[in-house]
Amino acid sequence: MSSILAGDRIRVSVFGQSHSEAIGAVVDGLPAGFRIDFDKLKTFTSRRAPGRASYATARKEADEPEFLSGLCGDTTCGAPLGFTIANTNTRSGDYANLRETPRPSHADYAAHVKFRGFQDVAGGGHFSGRLTAPLCVAGGICLQMLASRGVQVCAHIYSIADVCDTPFDPVCIPDTDFGAKPFPVLSDKQGEKMRAAIERARMDCDSVGGVVECAVTGVPAGLGDPMFDGVENRLAKALFGIPAVKGLEFGSGFAGSGLRGSENNDAFVTDGQGHITTVTNRHGGILGGITSGMPVVFRAAFKPTASIAKPQQSVHLPTDTPQTLEIKGRHDPCIVPRAVPVVEAVAAVVMLDLLLEGEAWK
Amino acid sequence: MSSILAGDRIRVSVFGQSHSEAIGAVVDGLPAGFRIDFDKLKTFTSRRAPGRASYATARKEADEPEFLSGLCGDTTCGAPLGFTIANTNTRSGDYANLRETPRPSHADYAAHVKFRGFQDVAGGGHFSGRLTAPLCVAGGICLQMLASRGVQVCAHIYSIADVCDTPFDPVCIPDTDFGAKPFPVLSDKQGEKMRAAIERARMDCDSVGGVVECAVTGVPAGLGDPMFDGVENRLAKALFGIPAVKGLEFGSGFAGSGLRGSENNDAFVTDGQGHITTVTNRHGGILGGITSGMPVVFRAAFKPTASIAKPQQSVHLPTDTPQTLEIKGRHDPCIVPRAVPVVEAVAAVVMLDLLLEGEAWK
Amino acid sequence: MSSILAGDRIRVSVFGQSHSEAIGAVVDGLPAGFRIDFDKLKTFTSRRAPGRASYATARKEADEPEFLSGLCGDTTCGAPLGFTIANTNTRSGDYANLRETPRPSHADYAAHVKFRGFQDVAGGGHFSGRLTAPLCVAGGICLQMLASRGVQVCAHIYSIADVCDTPFDPVCIPDTDFGAKPFPVLSDKQGEKMRAAIERARMDCDSVGGVVECAVTGVPAGLGDPMFDGVENRLAKALFGIPAVKGLEFGSGFAGSGLRGSENNDAFVTDGQGHITTVTNRHGGILGGITSGMPVVFRAAFKPTASIAKPQQSVHLPTDTPQTLEIKGRHDPCIVPRAVPVVEAVAAVVMLDLLLEGEAWK
Amino acid sequence: MSSILAGDRIRVSVFGQSHSEAIGAVVDGLPAGFRIDFDKLKTFTSRRAPGRASYATARKEADEPEFLSGLCGDTTCGAPLGFTIANTNTRSGDYANLRETPRPSHADYAAHVKFRGFQDVAGGGHFSGRLTAPLCVAGGICLQMLASRGVQVCAHIYSIADVCDTPFDPVCIPDTDFGAKPFPVLSDKQGEKMRAAIERARMDCDSVGGVVECAVTGVPAGLGDPMFDGVENRLAKALFGIPAVKGLEFGSGFAGSGLRGSENNDAFVTDGQGHITTVTNRHGGILGGITSGMPVVFRAAFKPTASIAKPQQSVHLPTDTPQTLEIKGRHDPCIVPRAVPVVEAVAAVVMLDLLLEGEAWK
Repeated sequence: MSSILAGDRIRVSVFGQSHSEAIGAVVDGLPAGFRIDFDKLKTFTSRRAPGRASYATARKEADEPEFLSGLCGDTTCGAPLGFTIANTNTRSGDYANLRETPRPSHADYAAHVKFRGFQDVAGGGHFSGRLTAPLCVAGGICLQMLASRGVQVCAHIYSIADVCDTPFDPVCIPDTDFGAKPFPVLSDKQGEKMRAAIERARMDCDSVGGVVECAVTGVPAGLGDPMFDGVENRLAKALFGIPAVKGLEFGSGFAGSGLRGSENNDAFVTDGQGHITTVTNRHGGILGGITSGMPVVFRAAFKPTASIAKPQQSVHLPTDTPQTLEIKGRHDPCIVPRAVPVVEAVAAVVMLDLLLEGEAWK
Repeated sequence: MSSILAGDRIRVSVFGQSHSEAIGAVVDGLPAGFRIDFDKLKTFTSRRAPGRASYATARKEADEPEFLSGLCGDTTCGAPLGFTIANTNTRSGDYANLRETPRPSHADYAAHVKFRGFQDVAGGGHFSGRLTAPLCVAGGICLQMLASRGVQVCAHIYSIADVCDTPFDPVCIPDTDFGAKPFPVLSDKQGEKMRAAIERARMDCDSVGGVVECAVTGVPAGLGDPMFDGVENRLAKALFGIPAVKGLEFGSGFAGSGLRGSENNDAFVTDGQGHITTVTNRHGGILGGITSGMPVVFRAAFKPTASIAKPQQSVHLPTDTPQTLEIKGRHDPCIVPRAVPVVEAVAAVVMLDLLLEGEAWK
Repeated sequence: MSSILAGDRIRVSVFGQSHSEAIGAVVDGLPAGFRIDFDKLKTFTSRRAPGRASYATARKEADEPEFLSGLCGDTTCGAPLGFTIANTNTRSGDYANLRETPRPSHADYAAHVKFRGFQDVAGGGHFSGRLTAPLCVAGGICLQMLASRGVQVCAHIYSIADVCDTPFDPVCIPDTDFGAKPFPVLSDKQGEKMRAAIERARMDCDSVGGVVECAVTGVPAGLGDPMFDGVENRLAKALFGIPAVKGLEFGSGFAGSGLRGSENNDAFVTDGQGHITTVTNRHGGILGGITSGMPVVFRAAFKPTASIAKPQQSVHLPTDTPQTLEIKGRHDPCIVPRAVPVVEAVAAVVMLDLLLEGEAWK
Repeated sequence: MSSILAGDRIRVSVFGQSHSEAIGAVVDGLPAGFRIDFDKLKTFTSRRAPGRASYATARKEADEPEFLSGLCGDTTCGAPLGFTIANTNTRSGDYANLRETPRPSHADYAAHVKFRGFQDVAGGGHFSGRLTAPLCVAGGICLQMLASRGVQVCAHIYSIADVCDTPFDPVCIPDTDFGAKPFPVLSDKQGEKMRAAIERARMDCDSVGGVVECAVTGVPAGLGDPMFDGVENRLAKALFGIPAVKGLEFGSGFAGSGLRGSENNDAFVTDGQGHITTVTNRHGGILGGITSGMPVVFRAAFKPTASIAKPQQSVHLPTDTPQTLEIKGRHDPCIVPRAVPVVEAVAAVVMLDLLLEGEAWK
């Protein structure tokens, strides 16, 4: 089920290559009767779209989805929602030599072995970050459905290169509308430093990576299942599907593994009205794979963009000889800012799936 | 599929609670005709068994699996392998008050909401670390099947509290047999410091966490699928099923997100015989979700044991009032040493599944 | 997922061979807090147990399940329900020659190819009808859960050899308790003729087959999904897992395909209180894969028992030469009477899964 | 996974409604490197297309798929194959009253309950037979891939109304190219009678149903799994996804259940070269859920077209009163001839999935 983000109820079947005729997705399992706010959806998906700022690829595309099915007017009808996004601005010639010489830390070589040389190399083919565009459309709709049920998904840039933003207070996630900010950070001052780091990398024909932090608030307690179908398992399976994600942690995560139990445990308190919360939230809203009612908080690590203009060492496969590779084409010196809505979108698909499932158990 | 570790071919259906009659698993999809070395299996599973050292729980059990099906003599016959492990040494009285007062950072409260108070609280019920015993049996068999195909899975303690072991060289994993060591570390000196940190925590009625690093060598290139069914996605879904895992990273992981592309990328080289490798292995053996042929390397962060003897703040649910909780019972001050074979076992299930699937595409 | 009856919420993972140490199952996803009536369960499973009458195998076993997990006392706790059934009365010697000479119309040869000769041949191994015993335990519990929600599953012998029982009136299923009858038919007179046909076959060292008709009443409208996850698809996937089932039809089924639309269509009527029903029920309670609120009615065709004492032509595999086979061992001359509760059990698992899922959408 | 035909390797995610912008599918898991013969594909899909003969709906459409992804030129590249088929000739006005008054034996009422009135009613929405068009595109490609591996899928009209074609000889399937025949029958004389029966029904403003028989030849022994993932289970789950299928039988099926074991069993023979076959094929090529190497033979029963012009009794839902319904619009008086390639297509998807999976076990 390689390209299907499959929950128990919602499945997002993604298709397309960077330079194919079109990309798109089929979203199965959305509840019927929901009126989609397409303006809001456009605002959301435009956060991922290229061409907004100097740190993004120069490739500019409308990225407008065309909806083919699943709707009666603006309202979901229960049938699978199918949509396409045209690929209009492709320059396949840039990638001609990649079939023969794999780019370091790109999927080229692994795909070459798996698909025995038949893979589409243009623009990274099916492995391109462009495939996150349909994810944002699907996730953007799920975000609206979650919001109508009182659940909010909100992410920011946690770090880029060695510059860190103010972390979320995991007990009380700020009600900031990052959607309005081109560069979603809590501290604009740190944001400036991040931009500077990106610009320096770009000048050096290099790239930088970073970490995205995401919080989901308004989640009822009791969602998810023990062991292999817990909330962490499901989010992890989905989030590692975003290109360049190489790490994931919930709550206090790796740092928490250096603490003592007495430092990492979260005491329970009650408001005297039967509403149980925890004083701190190092567990990231998930205990035993099941939501606790506290915000679900996680961080995803993105490696630096693999495609850099600097010369790199590779192998010319047909002749089995060393070759110095200089990658041409348009590439983000840092994908992290554009990855923020992608993380929100993927998390939204998973959380809506959990919520719909949980409604069955009331 | 809460308690089913489900691959494309291999499914491990785990059952049992800490204090139920028995625990066990059904393993579906193992290739027929494999002769299991039961002595070797026992050596492996004994690494997880409690009671080996002062850092482990005082609960001692034989932990011997009884095989009920799936075998003709010592050899797999293609039918599901079913086995049970008796729960012999249970002291349920220790847990009587937990139904009313959830332990901080344990699954108690989340399970209480999900199962509406009907969950088995004794010993943590289905959420107990004891459920990793059947995983080790299943994984121990998969490890043997992998070894017969030239694939090795090997983990060590990467860190405990603030003490770090020597990390693996991800290009050249040492051929150390950790199985023979009660405390699997590369640097015995650092191991001593870890033991001291555990002992200090135990004396303080507290606990410590840590990180396990695991490497899989001998993996052919080309296994796994793009996007949501990649090797990272599959390992993540499985590994977050181990109790207390709160973080996971592949290759350079979180640290890599602070590097530049030119620092994090792995150059390709050839030996002139068509054998392509990378000079470094910051990608952790996985590119675009697909194995590159380099060792698969990942680290899993374990939070400190939630059950500590120190008094903690909680809520008495029936009266909805604050309550100070003192946890009795037997608990590891640090589960990380015993988690090492569990990580190997779970990784082995996933990797064997991938390998069997990959054999179809040759 | 060969031996896993997998719904969206409920998974029954069956294990065991006819002559293995034990057989059993793990049932994942049962709602917590349900008090199982074990006497009622025993009454139900005893309907499948061998040795009740002359038409059944002479192999007599207690067939008592031992519950290992998933319960607190008599009540489900949300953890997977694991149980075993001992294999006590095995005579493996009877089957010694079957590894070399496959029985006609049995799984022996196909299993020999698939498992490369490593399959367990004793008693049919994993393909034995004995594996339906754990299905009856799992399904018997689901039947109780369904009954508590107002849903009844009821099957009878529709035909054996060329003798037919009175068919169900699909609009108004009789409220007969077949469980009390050793031979579940509506017409006892036809039942006598069936018994006579079975006895004649037994005398001739031969066997007969038949058809089981099953109805599920009290099902709310709106369960199931379009296309590949409809109620028919799910029931079909499950019911063809019962050994010897070779045909399945819903409502008017094959006969309906010979009718005209005006003869086969079911007119809608209302009681004036908003309760919509159909005057007839040739659609078998399912329209477009979704329940209509009318009884779900289907028939499953069972082939005659493949194991007959009459000499049959086969091949001695090691020498690749013709061989006449005379099957020894204990075999039912007709499995249909004992298959009736198995059909009910499997249908109950599927219907409970649908019902739990549907409760989410209210 | 309502609209996803999901195998272990191949998933066909279908989308669209009868009158939506477009219909289509995403096909995930096709092997890379296969050159599709698009002329052959067009010949195949045109067999399903409407407007070929008087027995088919008057709605004529090009039904040309537009391929958006998954190809490099004519060759599969390993990425999901996405395609759309435009809906050009829609007359939604014909269906205006159906939201209020469900058509007997159509999905209207069940969908109304499930989707709470939000379903798309135009042309049957997502339940329309038109959704079989993308299935034929997906299956047509699978047929080519199967043929390249020596596997043929071939179906004919077994019966329409009370007229039967010559059945297949299940041991030796004729090598007839039905694709060239507008009316795929073995006996053209019987075909004439079928056409006459259809024409009579059409004249009477009525419809007729029928049965499609399908055979898959060249299938190696050993494919499929025991119990719930057998070949019958998989085909059944898929085939009941074709609108109007209400029955399915393998080999001797329902008729076989009336036979004795000695009449229904298939003796094994060898050619002395290690090639084992059966003299007869009442088992339909499947034993214990696993292929025997003999042709896989099954029959699917199609109910008569539910949409008939004759006045029928229904209920006006808004007023909860009886209403006589006269269905307008274009409807086939018999869908069976056009269903023949659909059965082939769906069977091809399942069989290719099994074959790819089986190649892993060689």
